[in-house]
Amino acid sequence: MSNLVFLVLGASVLALAFAFFFFKQMMKEDEGTDTMKKIALHVRKGAMAYLKQQYKIVGIVFVVLAVIFAVMAVFGLQNSWVPFAFLTGGFFSGLAGFFGMKTATYASARTANAAQKSLDKGLKVAFRSGAVMGLTVVGLALLDISAWYIILNIFVKEADAAHKLIFITTTMLTFGMGASTQALFARVGGGIYTKAADVGADLVGKVEAGIPEDDPRNPATIADNVGDNVGDVAGMGADLYESYAGSILATAALGASAFAGSAEFQEKAVIAPMLIASIGVVLSLIGIFLVKTKEGATMKELLRALGRGVNVSAFLITIATFVILYVMGFENWLGISFSVVSGLVAGIIIGQATEYYTSQSYKPTQKVAESSSTGPATVIISGLGLGMLSTAIPVITVGVAIVMAYLCANGFQLAFSAKALSEGLYGIGIAAVGMLSTLGITLATDAYGPIADNAGGNAEMSGLGEEVRKRTDALDALGNTTAATGKGFAIGSAALTALALLASYVEEIKIALIRIGEKLPNGLEPAKASLIDFMDAYSVNLMNPVVLVGVFVGAMMAFLFCGLTMNAVGRAAQKMVEEVRRQFREIAGIMEGKAEPDYARCVAISTKGAQHEMLLPSILAIAIPIVVGVVLGVAGVMGLLIGGLSCGFVLAVFMANAGGAWDNAKKYIEEGNFGGKGSDNHKATVVGDTVGDPFKDTSGPSLNILIKLMSMVSIVMVGLTVVFHLM
Amino acid sequence: MSNLVFLVLGASVLALAFAFFFFKQMMKEDEGTDTMKKIALHVRKGAMAYLKQQYKIVGIVFVVLAVIFAVMAVFGLQNSWVPFAFLTGGFFSGLAGFFGMKTATYASARTANAAQKSLDKGLKVAFRSGAVMGLTVVGLALLDISAWYIILNIFVKEADAAHKLIFITTTMLTFGMGASTQALFARVGGGIYTKAADVGADLVGKVEAGIPEDDPRNPATIADNVGDNVGDVAGMGADLYESYAGSILATAALGASAFAGSAEFQEKAVIAPMLIASIGVVLSLIGIFLVKTKEGATMKELLRALGRGVNVSAFLITIATFVILYVMGFENWLGISFSVVSGLVAGIIIGQATEYYTSQSYKPTQKVAESSSTGPATVIISGLGLGMLSTAIPVITVGVAIVMAYLCANGFQLAFSAKALSEGLYGIGIAAVGMLSTLGITLATDAYGPIADNAGGNAEMSGLGEEVRKRTDALDALGNTTAATGKGFAIGSAALTALALLASYVEEIKIALIRIGEKLPNGLEPAKASLIDFMDAYSVNLMNPVVLVGVFVGAMMAFLFCGLTMNAVGRAAQKMVEEVRRQFREIAGIMEGKAEPDYARCVAISTKGAQHEMLLPSILAIAIPIVVGVVLGVAGVMGLLIGGLSCGFVLAVFMANAGGAWDNAKKYIEEGNFGGKGSDNHKATVVGDTVGDPFKDTSGPSLNILIKLMSMVSIVMVGLTVVFHLM
Repeated sequence: MSNLVFLVLGASVLALAFAFFFFKQMMKEDEGTDTMKKIALHVRKGAMAYLKQQYKIVGIVFVVLAVIFAVMAVFGLQNSWVPFAFLTGGFFSGLAGFFGMKTATYASARTANAAQKSLDKGLKVAFRSGAVMGLTVVGLALLDISAWYIILNIFVKEADAAHKLIFITTTMLTFGMGASTQALFARVGGGIYTKAADVGADLVGKVEAGIPEDDPRNPATIADNVGDNVGDVAGMGADLYESYAGSILATAALGASAFAGSAEFQEKAVIAPMLIASIGVVLSLIGIFLVKTKEGATMKELLRALGRGVNVSAFLITIATFVILYVMGFENWLGISFSVVSGLVAGIIIGQATEYYTSQSYKPTQKVAESSSTGPATVIISGLGLGMLSTAIPVITVGVAIVMAYLCANGFQLAFSAKALSEGLYGIGIAAVGMLSTLGITLATDAYGPIADNAGGNAEMSGLGEEVRKRTDALDALGNTTAATGKGFAIGSAALTALALLASYVEEIKIALIRIGEKLPNGLEPAKASLIDFMDAYSVNLMNPVVLVGVFVGAMMAFLFCGLTMNAVGRAAQKMVEEVRRQFREIAGIMEGKAEPDYARCVAISTKGAQHEMLLPSILAIAIPIVVGVVLGVAGVMGLLIGGLSCGFVLAVFMANAGGAWDNAKKYIEEGNFGGKGSDNHKATVVGDTVGDPFKDTSGPSLNILIKLMSMVSIVMVGLTVVFHLM
Repeated sequence: MSNLVFLVLGASVLALAFAFFFFKQMMKEDEGTDTMKKIALHVRKGAMAYLKQQYKIVGIVFVVLAVIFAVMAVFGLQNSWVPFAFLTGGFFSGLAGFFGMKTATYASARTANAAQKSLDKGLKVAFRSGAVMGLTVVGLALLDISAWYIILNIFVKEADAAHKLIFITTTMLTFGMGASTQALFARVGGGIYTKAADVGADLVGKVEAGIPEDDPRNPATIADNVGDNVGDVAGMGADLYESYAGSILATAALGASAFAGSAEFQEKAVIAPMLIASIGVVLSLIGIFLVKTKEGATMKELLRALGRGVNVSAFLITIATFVILYVMGFENWLGISFSVVSGLVAGIIIGQATEYYTSQSYKPTQKVAESSSTGPATVIISGLGLGMLSTAIPVITVGVAIVMAYLCANGFQLAFSAKALSEGLYGIGIAAVGMLSTLGITLATDAYGPIADNAGGNAEMSGLGEEVRKRTDALDALGNTTAATGKGFAIGSAALTALALLASYVEEIKIALIRIGEKLPNGLEPAKASLIDFMDAYSVNLMNPVVLVGVFVGAMMAFLFCGLTMNAVGRAAQKMVEEVRRQFREIAGIMEGKAEPDYARCVAISTKGAQHEMLLPSILAIAIPIVVGVVLGVAGVMGLLIGGLSCGFVLAVFMANAGGAWDNAKKYIEEGNFGGKGSDNHKATVVGDTVGDPFKDTSGPSLNILIKLMSMVSIVMVGLTVVFHLM
């Protein structure tokens, strides 16, 4: 085992230590008045109660799945490490969400309080708290990866070193399934929670009763703030933990097989993605410390301050990659480095395109706002149209990035050979790693948005006055802009990682066949077969009707999953609306501010709704790949994954951008355009915003996880597919 | 050449003769009062003016494309029949739309007048007029097919009989491209026209001014009625002409190659789909004559009357297929017949599912209506959710049908061999032919809907009174139900036909390579290579990044295309809204009914908007497959087609069903539920209906054509792709 892995362990400890340091620093801040403390406590309790409830249910799912894997291991359909790897993946992913959320719920009142003093103070508290989340995620992921790598290297007895590394890396992939499963539940459950509360609070409070957002008279307002934490913080944390770990693990597995012929470079290829991520931790820290502003900075300066941190990290990781790969002695260090660059550039372009399509500073969103003069219907039509058009740039960008990463890493071998393929796929994987390597800071800029949002809520409910609310709004708006970039990286890396996982799936077939001692359908020895041989043996080509049916089902899965989550939000929101209406009707003095609404009841309704509604879509996402595997076999599964990936990716971009544009079209009108707040135009865009809520915060982001989870499930279940299949 | 082709010619003449007969019969009916005549004339003139304008622009596109094909032929990249075949396909497709629309515009006032007498009389006039369209479409398609088959058999000089048939059938496919191109322009242009007028009329008339639909005071009302004709009649006619001809041509081409080894059965396999379609003409006529009701029939009885005609035809074609294939002496006549049955059954199931999800008699649409109690936003969310969920049954049904049609036709060969593949693909093609074989009657039930709708408009504007309007509404509602079944067949057959076209694409590569005297990339002789050899030679497997990028671009194309058409409707509607508002404002006495609105101006705006807006999406649909071919080569094109097909199919179902459900949720409330007409709930569902308009009548149905047109373009352009490609 290479000692380089201890560098990875070190980076993980470094990240966690700084996370702890920033957390302590934040905790030292003053939480403000008693009212502020009380509200923060309400939110914190609600959020923790939700998370406990969620982890209980998810815990049951994990135990059931772990037992299934154990049974599979007994029958030789999986190896016996898998149940444990799976469980740790889920555990650490959940832990990342938990820590992030805990930090966020402590930080919101402190941010509001700091914003009373100045904008910069507010920014610092919020951003450093976001950094806790970013660093916790990368720290825990690298800890899990390096620990398992060390453990497996010690305990796995295998004479053939090359085969041992393939075995280790493919086993480690199954902890990715644990992370994906946890992430899906977190995103779907949290997404339903937050949007049920948000939609419910808005529809009755803003639209019917005409009271402002986060007004303490609105019974759903605490639930809404809890929702920001469980959805946007805990959900996002688990999500990105999974993306980050998944891209590293998939690339390591591809490296182990692409360089299986060379004892020297095989392990280096496995370690390289981990190393790039480790250096990324250090560079993220540098970036985080660079984020500071002068007293009285303007919005633009603030934005530049944040951007500086992110851009410096991204720039430095590019240079570091060239250095790392050169020093490690890779023959094609230049090519592989350019693969990383193509991933990074793609992430930036997608982020820019996202911003162009969703920010009110540009034409597209302004046109959505303009269409409000003919009512809500045209707002919806133009938003949907914008979302659909906005898929073009990301798809073409990812397409170019795939081809570039592939060709750079294999030395521009245009012919489709086994060697060109495995080296090229490694390039695609490492491009995803590059995109996510500075997650420490990009996630910090993402996570601080909901903290600022909650701080605003706290300020409003505690009656801190217009000025503070303005500052927290500014912080929130800043977060929206950086979030666009973050989304670009998240969605782009999801597509590349899913492709890498597709290749890993084929590797897993190989391992499974060797384990059960079978040959390929065409009689080849699995150990000697290349990826292309596998494609031939299982007829995974586009004329095979089984593949085509798989592609259809995959495309359908993306829509079905979104439909289920959309309807779930609709149903849960409906219940919230009824409850809020009931309280307005039945609790005397509530509108005059004389009686306190029953916040807890709304929290309970959102919690119950989310728990209840998250099960079906999540279980479906796990079950469908298994069913397709058993019915249609390997060719069907690969079709399923490609259909789900392509359609899911495009659908995710569409939903995220349509939702973002509606949100900002509303803000654009609130800024005083087309009649301003309270006008009919504004009301029309509120409809758009409400429709956009589940688009951008529930269904859309869950798709990212869906496409990877389906791959992960297929990978873990491949033993079953290979042995039992109808076609 | 087999004499059986003259049976096909005969069937075509029979269909056209009966179309003429029904037309004459309809023309004998009284057109009613002078006002009714005047209004009908307005609509007829507007529609014809539009069609003339449209054909001018499309004519230019056709000339340009024909010249390109001619140049390609000169350079040996295509054969010299192609430009002519292409032109006739476009010409006949346009002719079908033209005749259908001419009939419809003559029929509407006559239907309204007949409905004054009784419901049955109204039904008969409208339905028989719909039958003119149905029979014209199948008659012209079979005429074009049989004529070309005879011509090419006479003029093509080829020593090898087997090769000659392959050459003839693949050449004939290119007239499918003409039909597809015409259909796309008709659907997109017509769809934009009709929805711009509809949305514009509704938003200002219904919502702002509070006057009923089709009120003569609304300046956009004539344009709205013209729109029904150019979109729902001419557009649909061209669309289904293309589906019908496309499925027969693709299956013939597959038959020529699947049975190339047998001199006896090769031509029989080519003729079989034509024969099934020809018998379908006769059975459709029987079905049409079965549609009659007693005086004073209830809605249910009317529905049963229509259903009887359609079901009897479908049942008889099943039996006829077994007989035809048995008599022709196919060894596997039983299996191939069951392929046809699987297609028919799939069509029926999809139709039923469509009805379940979109009819107000069932839970899903009722729930959308119910969600109106929390405003338009929840109507939109629940409608989108419903549309997404509704994709599951059609996709699984088509998946099962594909596998069944494949396996039945190849005698349940589970192993993926060249023989199993080519025979199985023939089965998939003939399943599509089976679905569409009774188009004569299914299209009649489809086309009579807009006629009834227009009759209602005419009745309203002529002040014929509540009773007549009620009858025409009943006819319209009846049409909506049968249209669901029609949609099932249209969309299901599109998916199967597109798959058959994918296989034809590979055949065209073979022809192209032989023409230019090149071998396959792996050195094989094209004439001796099987479909599987082609997959290997061009590495069309799911690990090839080029294929994956193609799939991504295909999935994106579906969204991009919809986004463009949605926005086009939005923009054109915006202009209409402004014009209607202007007229209300500037023409004194218009609201009191004292001054006549400027109908012509609204017609001109819709015409100009549609002409202007249809170009970009349509040209993109033609250009993208060419660009992908040149950049990514054969593997990329096949990925593109699969991505476009899978994502486009699911997206089309989603949009059609969401749109249908919104429409009927509104109707459900208008029937007196949840507050009834004029309530806030009703207003909320009007928003849903308006959003649904471009979903179900512009973007959704155009997707059907898009997925086939992209295949057709790839097929015709394959010579270019094979010679020039970057990757």
